[in-house]
Amino acid sequence: MGRWEPDARGRLSVAALDLYLERGYDQTTVADIAERAGVTERTFFRHFADKREVLFDATNQLQNDVVSAVQSASAELSPMQVVELAMSEGPVFLEQRRAHASRRAVALAATPALMERELLKIYGLRTAVAVALEARGVDPLTARVAAETGGSCFSAGFAQWVEAEDDRTLSSYIHEAFAQLRLMTDVPHQPRG
Amino acid sequence: MGRWEPDARGRLSVAALDLYLERGYDQTTVADIAERAGVTERTFFRHFADKREVLFDATNQLQNDVVSAVQSASAELSPMQVVELAMSEGPVFLEQRRAHASRRAVALAATPALMERELLKIYGLRTAVAVALEARGVDPLTARVAAETGGSCFSAGFAQWVEAEDDRTLSSYIHEAFAQLRLMTDVPHQPRG
Repeated sequence: MGRWEPDARGRLSVAALDLYLERGYDQTTVADIAERAGVTERTFFRHFADKREVLFDATNQLQNDVVSAVQSASAELSPMQVVELAMSEGPVFLEQRRAHASRRAVALAATPALMERELLKIYGLRTAVAVALEARGVDPLTARVAAETGGSCFSAGFAQWVEAEDDRTLSSYIHEAFAQLRLMTDVPHQPRG
Repeated sequence: MGRWEPDARGRLSVAALDLYLERGYDQTTVADIAERAGVTERTFFRHFADKREVLFDATNQLQNDVVSAVQSASAELSPMQVVELAMSEGPVFLEQRRAHASRRAVALAATPALMERELLKIYGLRTAVAVALEARGVDPLTARVAAETGGSCFSAGFAQWVEAEDDRTLSSYIHEAFAQLRLMTDVPHQPRG
């Protein structure tokens, strides 16, 4: 090889997304992606296991960042506060990638094979958050419900952010989803302890 | 053909699960499943599109039942109350299938291809619930958060029910998860409207 590759990894992700949108996922080969990115197939496989994984670099980083945020959150916060903090501050790096996220969402919606991988990643992220909460001493059912419902707020906020044409931040959409959840689960006509 | 087939569909589901647990999903063919169930491959494909789908009969019924429950819920209920009602009453037919659900969970956890399909089905169910809520006049963000977080409570309750060795109902576990969510999102030290 020996050829100089400035951010081959990033170029491969962009090339793959472009091709999936242009001609469809099934009609795109790893060779096509490598060619578009100006690298060899061997370089592709040094970075990614297959042509699905190439779209999930940010998802893997997201999981690391969210889990780190759970681990380093103040001990005074409740499980749900920890999750809201982690879900809204963990993905700060995504704020600059709205256009890419929006195009990626189109490719996912059109391709069951990609959507399945996406859902498996989301499931993995929520499970990792539940495990990190348990490590803080939260009981298993509480940890699971907090991770799952918090993850739902993230997903709902993310989907709105990707679709809307405004200049609001991802973080503000995620906080809005958590606020909406608090409103919805607040049942004033039932007696409270 | 011409041969009498009492509940071939049900026998195929049981045979597939047995084989996936005995020898693994990858090592099981449609021919193996058909043979174990005492039917032809052709009969298999009359009932199921592939060897993943054979484990998702109950999931499809679950979605129909939950969506029907959303549609027929009293107009006086809040979105979250509608979702809790639908998620806890929709799956009544599952109460009799705890042992099967438990074995199925083992097969899913061991097989990414099955887990991906499961997650796609769950995503479809939650989307269908969100659409049914919107049809009741609920705004899109509220509908999405209610469907996603309600679905999370269902999943958390279902997972506990499948794992625990007691005689509690699935419905009681699901209600407990919703109660846990209400507790968790109740933040007493913040001022309330």
